[in-house]
Amino acid sequence: MNIETGPIPRLPRGFRDIPPEDVLLRERMIASVCSVYRRYGFEPLETPHIEYLDALGKHLPDVDAPDGGVFAFRDDSAEWVALRYDLTAPLARYVAEHEKEIVFPYRRYQVGPVFRLEKPGPGRFREFYQCDFDTVGAGSPAADAEACCALADALEAAGVERGGYIVKINNRKALNGALEAAGVAPASVAESSSDNSLVVLRAIDKLERVGMDGVIRLLGEGRKDESGDFTKGAGLTNSQIDSIVRYLRASGDGRSDVCDALFEAVKDSETGREGVSELRAIHDMLSAAGFGEDRAVFDPLIVRGLAYYTGPVFEAALTFETVDERGEKKQFGSVAGGGRYDTLVERFLGRKVPATGASIGVDRLMSALKQLLPPDASAYSAPVLVTTMDPSLMPEYQKLVFEIRGAGIPAELFTGSGGFRKQLKYADRRNLPLAVICGEDELNSRTVSIKDLLLGRELSKDIKDRASWVDDRPAQVTAPRSELVATIKKMLSGSDI
Amino acid sequence: MNIETGPIPRLPRGFRDIPPEDVLLRERMIASVCSVYRRYGFEPLETPHIEYLDALGKHLPDVDAPDGGVFAFRDDSAEWVALRYDLTAPLARYVAEHEKEIVFPYRRYQVGPVFRLEKPGPGRFREFYQCDFDTVGAGSPAADAEACCALADALEAAGVERGGYIVKINNRKALNGALEAAGVAPASVAESSSDNSLVVLRAIDKLERVGMDGVIRLLGEGRKDESGDFTKGAGLTNSQIDSIVRYLRASGDGRSDVCDALFEAVKDSETGREGVSELRAIHDMLSAAGFGEDRAVFDPLIVRGLAYYTGPVFEAALTFETVDERGEKKQFGSVAGGGRYDTLVERFLGRKVPATGASIGVDRLMSALKQLLPPDASAYSAPVLVTTMDPSLMPEYQKLVFEIRGAGIPAELFTGSGGFRKQLKYADRRNLPLAVICGEDELNSRTVSIKDLLLGRELSKDIKDRASWVDDRPAQVTAPRSELVATIKKMLSGSDI
Repeated sequence: MNIETGPIPRLPRGFRDIPPEDVLLRERMIASVCSVYRRYGFEPLETPHIEYLDALGKHLPDVDAPDGGVFAFRDDSAEWVALRYDLTAPLARYVAEHEKEIVFPYRRYQVGPVFRLEKPGPGRFREFYQCDFDTVGAGSPAADAEACCALADALEAAGVERGGYIVKINNRKALNGALEAAGVAPASVAESSSDNSLVVLRAIDKLERVGMDGVIRLLGEGRKDESGDFTKGAGLTNSQIDSIVRYLRASGDGRSDVCDALFEAVKDSETGREGVSELRAIHDMLSAAGFGEDRAVFDPLIVRGLAYYTGPVFEAALTFETVDERGEKKQFGSVAGGGRYDTLVERFLGRKVPATGASIGVDRLMSALKQLLPPDASAYSAPVLVTTMDPSLMPEYQKLVFEIRGAGIPAELFTGSGGFRKQLKYADRRNLPLAVICGEDELNSRTVSIKDLLLGRELSKDIKDRASWVDDRPAQVTAPRSELVATIKKMLSGSDI
Repeated sequence: MNIETGPIPRLPRGFRDIPPEDVLLRERMIASVCSVYRRYGFEPLETPHIEYLDALGKHLPDVDAPDGGVFAFRDDSAEWVALRYDLTAPLARYVAEHEKEIVFPYRRYQVGPVFRLEKPGPGRFREFYQCDFDTVGAGSPAADAEACCALADALEAAGVERGGYIVKINNRKALNGALEAAGVAPASVAESSSDNSLVVLRAIDKLERVGMDGVIRLLGEGRKDESGDFTKGAGLTNSQIDSIVRYLRASGDGRSDVCDALFEAVKDSETGREGVSELRAIHDMLSAAGFGEDRAVFDPLIVRGLAYYTGPVFEAALTFETVDERGEKKQFGSVAGGGRYDTLVERFLGRKVPATGASIGVDRLMSALKQLLPPDASAYSAPVLVTTMDPSLMPEYQKLVFEIRGAGIPAELFTGSGGFRKQLKYADRRNLPLAVICGEDELNSRTVSIKDLLLGRELSKDIKDRASWVDDRPAQVTAPRSELVATIKKMLSGSDI
């Protein structure tokens, strides 16, 4: 095959390659988060990347081709399979398949890529990681409280300092109670999106973007945005709107007071009272675990888009300021979320199984950590390069490189083609810290030369930008052969020789 | 949706769920192996699970549908995409795509699942992990020698003791030289599988199964197996066969002597002499690195199936005895392999780029480690269960569970439904080690009770099977509340209270 007929090397649309620093940072982050999950008694599970489409539940019943949003195709038995679009649907399949053997509550965590056939955009890819934990078969608010604690602890383990995040908790039962109290039918999974209560929930969910005034308009006749586009509202009466806004504006000095205010807004609805009483139980469990208002608050504005949530819902937001795509300062915002969903396994088993859990958006959290953590946090150590000036000395170079590796220091022998200058250029472009040099002279005098490439790069910068240590450090050191490793260690630590 | 119309929860054919112990053992194994790769100066890369089919190179040029063996489908732009079937093809795409920015030699490692649309069987799945490292842009045998060293070090890091594995090295140039010297045309990637030299290579590749006698028959007229099936041979003359067998039987006291014997078998072929000289260079580099015959040998019988290898080839085999599916004792065998392939990027760029690398079969190595390592090597610690006898005491239980977790011990609060007996049954079926019990009595006397469930399980076994410690240990301990963590630590370590 020649170059004219060869394929063009390119990534599929919406996919990306992950560079070394990010691979390592993500690995470290996931390891920290999962160690918290294990400490909470969750055990790992790994399901395959592929499931039957009907098991994932994204198949339209009367249509031959699959619904949008998933990568679906027929396998060799002509059955529809699909790449998983989240880690919860495979969990439901697993639980339903192994219902007889599983001892409930079943507590598992899972990490891995999920796939969405959606329009790619800046920061939006068709393959991304999730990191989930769930408790299936536990109806107690204690399980929801625990999920909030685990999220908070996981963020701290990943490197977010206390005070740098907040877990915001609401309850869909309480929210539905507020709607019921206002005379709007409660939302449920079974109902279609034309249900007015879903229009109301969707309006509330837009609060961050449109503000409370916007939400009020969306609950009433509708709202015209800056571009002049009009969104039709839910058409509620003023007194209905007031009733719902009373819930949304519920506040107080701490979680317990917020519960009192929420109770006032829902007291005419049984569902609402039940929801608030679950929040009180969550508050008690959070307090017993030592989770104060600095880590977890009740926030009546949290909706969580998915219709399937049936009880407590929560999300973890990072509170530090960042600059968004439009150059505006804003809070970094949500990196994780979850809640109670008691209907997930129902599609398989025909009965409700209580479940609660949360998912960390690994890529969102990664991008936050890149702003929060020191730049070397990925733990990637570029190797020391052993240059190969003289091909006849290759076995000597091999001894050098293994001696360095033996001390636990990443090291690499130059095995490409090209002379000494090309080798130094290679080290430079790869940002390697040191180059070990050994020619006839060094060999005869039982020495090695070590070139400080970081220093070289510093020296080549503008004088004003130079670090203060630059002038005190030698750019190249010749050391006795027996002090190879010790000298390298000193140079890598940046201390004086 | 009710149970009659609901989907059946099931895994797609050829896929599996990975249980907790295996997830953790694999994680630990991969972490060890990758730390060796990094020590050798390889950097991580992660490519997506999906690539364009033409970039993977499994597309038949004149056929609309893709070749067998890969999971392929059309994306939303109607372009053929496929799940990667290995990690080398995506590497080739990456290198070709970023040729201008990459500084060669480019050294990367990658771990992850790959997908094959092949007939599933015992231990053969359609999704499995590979763990690869490659050096692209290095033609020197030093790079091949390094790959062999990295493989050996990686196996040791994963937990295979020295002496428990061997890296076997051959050279396709030398092997082709032997064929050339025997008057059989040399194999090359460009040639089709009807080429006689490939028939010869395929015959040699079968040695382990058919023995040397079988290979000799396959080089000649053909071979009839036990079932009476006849495989047509390569039709070589006796003197041609003798010439090739001289290569295959080359042996000696150490790598250097084997090289001498190989040289005798190929000395009439320039390609053959080049191949043996590369092996000598590899020997020098192995020796300089301190890799003796206990870790790496030259083995003229190694072929490595794939036609694309162009120089040194190697595989790492585990030498301990195991029992195969048919109940027969045999060496565990190959867990990793690799070699030089100088043509991989050629499809994109129209010119050869030298490359060498290896791949560890993660699942093969895992299954070996499960036989080699102690059973607790997965590092999975089942959590301590805090039982919830009295629902009104939930916040007290929450304090207990967080106190235990605070000491770094995995702990779980029972959040399911069901009384005390059901909770103990749950702990038992999940193999949890300890159950913490706290009722009114304990609360009033500021104590906690801790039940030793491992002991309980031992006691329920037949007397003769009991561990000797059983009789000396109390099945349940009541300790002051302030000594909760200390008591749990003692009980988990199995020491006397």
